[in-house]
Parts: sequence; structure tokens; C-alpha cells
Amino acid sequence: MLDGGLLLATDAMAEGVHFDLRYSSLDDAGWKALAVNCSDLAAMGGSARAAVAAVVVPERRPGVADALASGLVAAAAAFGCPLVGGDTVVGPALVLTVTVLGESHPSGAVLRSGAGPGDSIFVTGPLGGPRVALAALRRGDSPAPESVERLRRPVPRLAEGRAAAEAGADAMIDLSDGLSSDLGHVCRRSGVGALLEAAAVPLGAGATLDDALAGGDDYELCFTAPDPERVAATFAGAGLAAPVRIGTITGDGEMVVVGPDGTRRRLPPAGFEHAVP
Amino acid sequence: MLDGGLLLATDAMAEGVHFDLRYSSLDDAGWKALAVNCSDLAAMGGSARAAVAAVVVPERRPGVADALASGLVAAAAAFGCPLVGGDTVVGPALVLTVTVLGESHPSGAVLRSGAGPGDSIFVTGPLGGPRVALAALRRGDSPAPESVERLRRPVPRLAEGRAAAEAGADAMIDLSDGLSSDLGHVCRRSGVGALLEAAAVPLGAGATLDDALAGGDDYELCFTAPDPERVAATFAGAGLAAPVRIGTITGDGEMVVVGPDGTRRRLPPAGFEHAVP
Repeated sequence: MLDGGLLLATDAMAEGVHFDLRYSSLDDAGWKALAVNCSDLAAMGGSARAAVAAVVVPERRPGVADALASGLVAAAAAFGCPLVGGDTVVGPALVLTVTVLGESHPSGAVLRSGAGPGDSIFVTGPLGGPRVALAALRRGDSPAPESVERLRRPVPRLAEGRAAAEAGADAMIDLSDGLSSDLGHVCRRSGVGALLEAAAVPLGAGATLDDALAGGDDYELCFTAPDPERVAATFAGAGLAAPVRIGTITGDGEMVVVGPDGTRRRLPPAGFEHAVP
Repeated sequence: MLDGGLLLATDAMAEGVHFDLRYSSLDDAGWKALAVNCSDLAAMGGSARAAVAAVVVPERRPGVADALASGLVAAAAAFGCPLVGGDTVVGPALVLTVTVLGESHPSGAVLRSGAGPGDSIFVTGPLGGPRVALAALRRGDSPAPESVERLRRPVPRLAEGRAAAEAGADAMIDLSDGLSSDLGHVCRRSGVGALLEAAAVPLGAGATLDDALAGGDDYELCFTAPDPERVAATFAGAGLAAPVRIGTITGDGEMVVVGPDGTRRRLPPAGFEHAVP
């Protein structure tokens, strides 16, 4: 966060690493590049105010910058975050870097480090769908259309992030690498642990709990807050779907999942592999 | 320019296109990536407030991101523009994208489009030195040290840009691609022409007028202003070296250079090739 409550988020996306044109279009890649940056701001409770894009395009690939721009512009309109400038250069590989300027919530930016024992843990939507969809695309199967859409054109949870900040969220992150890894970041930064209720975790089409824990590219928010009633009331007041309570922050440093039958499973400090849609 | 006088500049630099590790270090590349963005803001009369950097690094090149960051951090300290965040990802080629947030001068951002007939044309320093230095490096010769330093570690003319805005500059650009090409942008955008006095153009070590016209990577500012006395007084009042008056904006659309003997030479609408330091 900068003086005056300004926020900057930047993300570079390289072909073959962050997007794969076998499974998504250039248009989708442009959309996603803006979406993931807006999602970073959403995870701080901030708004997205303006974006710039820098594109490196290999020679002999005309039209690439225009196709990326088309997705960027569509996303900019959808998220209310105008694209105000950019740079296109010829280079050795296709790389798209988007930077978004935003403003924090008046109460300040929500960080990853503020979770405290006893806090409730929430997520803003179903998890694991994009992971299942990507696996299906790779096998040549037809995945659930809504999961493909979420994989290709994620929608940053800007309104939900602001509502969470309003409701007293003390830590928040966007779920780009899977619940296990991302909630793990919150626990490490906050010096706490987490007890997750397996049955409570909302799942996308065809997804299992493991897809939710290990899956990437969900772009839902996960946040912790001391007062669940205030959370429910604030989201309702903002006309937003209630976030789902999936567990409780604990005082030890461990992340544990409790099954419906009471069995406990400890989550490893998860590494992750970026999903390549 | 955004609401509230905020400015965003973004530039992607790819290895082999914008920097070449035969002639400059990673540390220099990091410095330059921040410098060229700050130079974009300087050319609008703005200040540089904060920067973020996104780096794509090929696998098996450990230490690259740290070396780039070292140059970025040194430049951030030198320019008073703190690096407040970033993103490092593995990818197919080395690409560094820096975005700088700035604020425009209270009188508004100086654009390229405001030059009017009768305006004086100024540059803030000697031109062509980096072009000569790069050619020497490529031949295996030893160029003038100050020109090598300018090639590798350009210093954005932030104070000069603000002074120009203060002095009523109505068009401004930074000289990254050579005077002919960059002043050509101003003329095209403003619908005017230019009469340059060959003998007045300040030259870097060993540079000819053609180096100044065609050379890149000078990162001096070129601006137009109706009142040369006000320009001189404002720069003096700010404790800055006086900019050099090199010609006059004309009403036709042509760019002409007048030699000391009165011969006139018309400049072609110049293309450019990026110097690769």
C-alpha cells in the first residue's frame, strides 16, 4: 500500500507457463491478465481504478497484440477498471504484464498477516472447478461449461473483497494456487493454524475436496474474520451471496482437515504447480 | 493521465532487444528499466512516486532476478521512486516490465500535442553520446566513459521536466529514439513542423549531428515553449542547467535542419531501430 491508500498490483503472464493456446484463446489470456491483478486488489479489500498493459510479442506473430487487447478491453469494461495505457514491443517470447492501480478500503488494506485464533474462515464461492476442467481439456474430454468459463475468464471478487473488509476481515488472500497453499500463506504470515471442516468446503462441478485443496485458478477469496454474524449481515446488506464458513483459525501452526466422520488429516505445507489453462 | 492527476507508465524490456548482456550488466538492465519509465513521466512534467516490477526469468538462470533487483533498487533510491512490489515468474525468456505511478504537475500533464508555430524548441542536454558509445562497444573499442554511463544507467530528467511544465512547455517528449524520430512525433501530434539550427544542437562526446538526429537512448527531454525567457528564468530559479534552444516550431508539417552555411536539409519521417546496449 502506498501513501493515500493507493495500491499497485503487477503480474507477468508468459505463454506456455500461465496460458496455453491449446486450451484458451489470446482473448482469454488478455482477460485473465487483468483479472488476476484485480483479484490481487480484491484480496486486500481494495477497488481497481485503472490498468496498463505491456506486451512482448515475437516477430512474425501479427495480430497477437490486438487479440490480447480485445480480451483486456472486455475485462476492463466488465470490472470497471479502464485500460489507460500500454507498451507493445517485439521480443523473444509472448509475455503480457498488466499492472493495476487501486485504492484500499477506507479502513486500510487487508493483509495476509492479521488472522487470529478463533477467527472464522470463509470462502466466497465453489472451489476446484477450474482444476477439474483443465484436466478434462487435457484429456480431450468436455468439462462443465461453467468451470471452463471460470478457468478462461475468471471474475475478480472485487465487491466481495470490499464487503469482507467492511465486515472486519483481518486476513485475506485470493485462491490462485489452491486452498491448501493459499490458506497456508495466511497461516504462516499470521503465525496461526487452521481447522477446516471438509464437509463445509464448497466444491465446483465434479470437484473433490482434494481438487479444492490443491487446485489453482479459482480466484475466489479466502478470508478470516472474528465476527461471522457481522460478515453475513454485511454481505447481505451489499446484495452479495453469503460467503461460506469453512473452518476456524487455531493457535498452533498446523492446518488440519476434519472429515464428516471426525477423522483428522494434516495438510502438508503444499507446494504448487501453476495450472496452465 | 488519470483522475486526480495520477500518471502510470509501463515498459517491457526483453533481453536481446532492449538490453544485451555483452554490453551491460543485469544490474544496469534493472536500473534502466526503472529509468525509462521515470523518463516517460518526466516527459509529461510529472513526478515519480512508486514503482512495481514484474520479471520473467528462464529456468536454470538463478540469481538473475536478484541482479535485476539490485539495479532497480539503486535506481529507485537515486530517483526517489521506491519499488513497492513485484512479481517473479519462470518463463521462456528474460523480460522485465516496470510500471511507475506518478503525479502530474499541478498545471496538468504536458502532452506531445500542444506545440504551436513560433514556439522555441529546447533540449535538456547533449545528444548522440550513447549511440556513439554503443557503436564503439560493438567494434570492441573503448568509448567515452560518460557516454557508456549514460547508455547503461540513464538518469531521467524529472526535475527538468517539472521545470519545463512550470515554464509553460506546451509539448514534451523524452529522447529515446533520436531527435528526428521523437521530435517528429511531437510535430505529427501537434500538426506542426520544426526548423532546427544544426549548430545549436548540443552533442555528446564524439557525436555528430546525425548521431543526435538518429541516435537512441539519450533520455534527455525535448520540449517546446512559447516564452524562452520564462524557460531560462524557471530553470535558473530551480537551480538547473539552462536547456538549449535548438530551433523553432513552424506552421507547415515539415522538419528542416538549417546548417551554419544556411543550407537546408529536410528530415525524412524517421523510422528507428532500438539501440541495444
